[in-house]
Amino acid sequence: MTERSVLHEFSASGNCYKVRLTAALLGIPLERREYDIMKGETRTPEFLQNVNANGRIPVLQIGERFIPESNAACYYIADGSNLIPTERFDHADMLRWMFWEQYNHEPNVATLRFWMRWVGIDNLSELQRLQMTPKRTAGNAALRLMDDHLSGHEWFVGEVMSLADICLFAYTHVASDADFDLKSYPKVVEWIERIKGHPHYLAMDA
Amino acid sequence: MTERSVLHEFSASGNCYKVRLTAALLGIPLERREYDIMKGETRTPEFLQNVNANGRIPVLQIGERFIPESNAACYYIADGSNLIPTERFDHADMLRWMFWEQYNHEPNVATLRFWMRWVGIDNLSELQRLQMTPKRTAGNAALRLMDDHLSGHEWFVGEVMSLADICLFAYTHVASDADFDLKSYPKVVEWIERIKGHPHYLAMDA
Repeated sequence: MTERSVLHEFSASGNCYKVRLTAALLGIPLERREYDIMKGETRTPEFLQNVNANGRIPVLQIGERFIPESNAACYYIADGSNLIPTERFDHADMLRWMFWEQYNHEPNVATLRFWMRWVGIDNLSELQRLQMTPKRTAGNAALRLMDDHLSGHEWFVGEVMSLADICLFAYTHVASDADFDLKSYPKVVEWIERIKGHPHYLAMDA
Repeated sequence: MTERSVLHEFSASGNCYKVRLTAALLGIPLERREYDIMKGETRTPEFLQNVNANGRIPVLQIGERFIPESNAACYYIADGSNLIPTERFDHADMLRWMFWEQYNHEPNVATLRFWMRWVGIDNLSELQRLQMTPKRTAGNAALRLMDDHLSGHEWFVGEVMSLADICLFAYTHVASDADFDLKSYPKVVEWIERIKGHPHYLAMDA
């Protein structure tokens, strides 16, 4: 990319890590700007006005333009690379897994991780407390569906790693932060190791 | 598309309607197969085994292959058409709105609509009842963000209608089913009328 690229992020977020990992695997440099979401730094008038009216990170800045939504930011970075299949069905299938990640996986696995490790169980609202069990059930169902898929496939789409793998990897590989037991999903564990074995793999805390 | 295309759907679902509307706008024929989700017809062993292991509709069948997730199915149908911008930023920006729709709009506007019109308020669980107010707040925030964006733009991305508009339209134009007051969002109302004015517009109940 010829324009300056800045990732507006909270680096412990898996959604932000996805974008860094995509860039790292492709050897694309990204500037990073950190916000403390626990202090409301993504809800300031300046952030809402200039970066993302939705008050969330990550946001990928390209020159003077901004792309919110982690999976859209990953797509922008990887556009034209071998992380995005060009065959019509495989391309839609990649997007299928990326939409599934944001609808069925992230709101369960990532939200429990955030509540348990950042907010703290003792600080949860009554409503959040009531949601913990359904989110755990749904998170385990998501991991089960992934494990079942990976029983017949090395990667989520086609025969090579794609953005679908990267987007699903981000919160899956740290699911134990939310007390999910990855040992129950052995194909997921093998897939995690395959991704970690990529020569340009970047760890979440790197 | 040369292969037979079948939409596995529950026709009152906005997520299913998106796929029909995309096909209609492009003049692409779709076979339809209806499932009664209130009777669990998408959770049968046959459905889970043969159509979607995630137990949800819509699923777009192309020949013998299946694409779950409404926005991925819309993308497959529209791939290569003028509903998908080819410029790199605009393409990612379209995906941004489609991911935002599934994360910030659908779980609020669509879920409240489903609870109020299909499940029925009296049949909600304690947890669902507690979620109604936060979902209404978040649904109104989503409609507000759309209205603000449309104050400066006719369409969500660039200067023409794209899949972002279609995916956002599906549940927005029936938000009053969930007692959202669209009159509070006049730019959204104008945008709804622009979409309805398309020569190949297909109504939800058509």
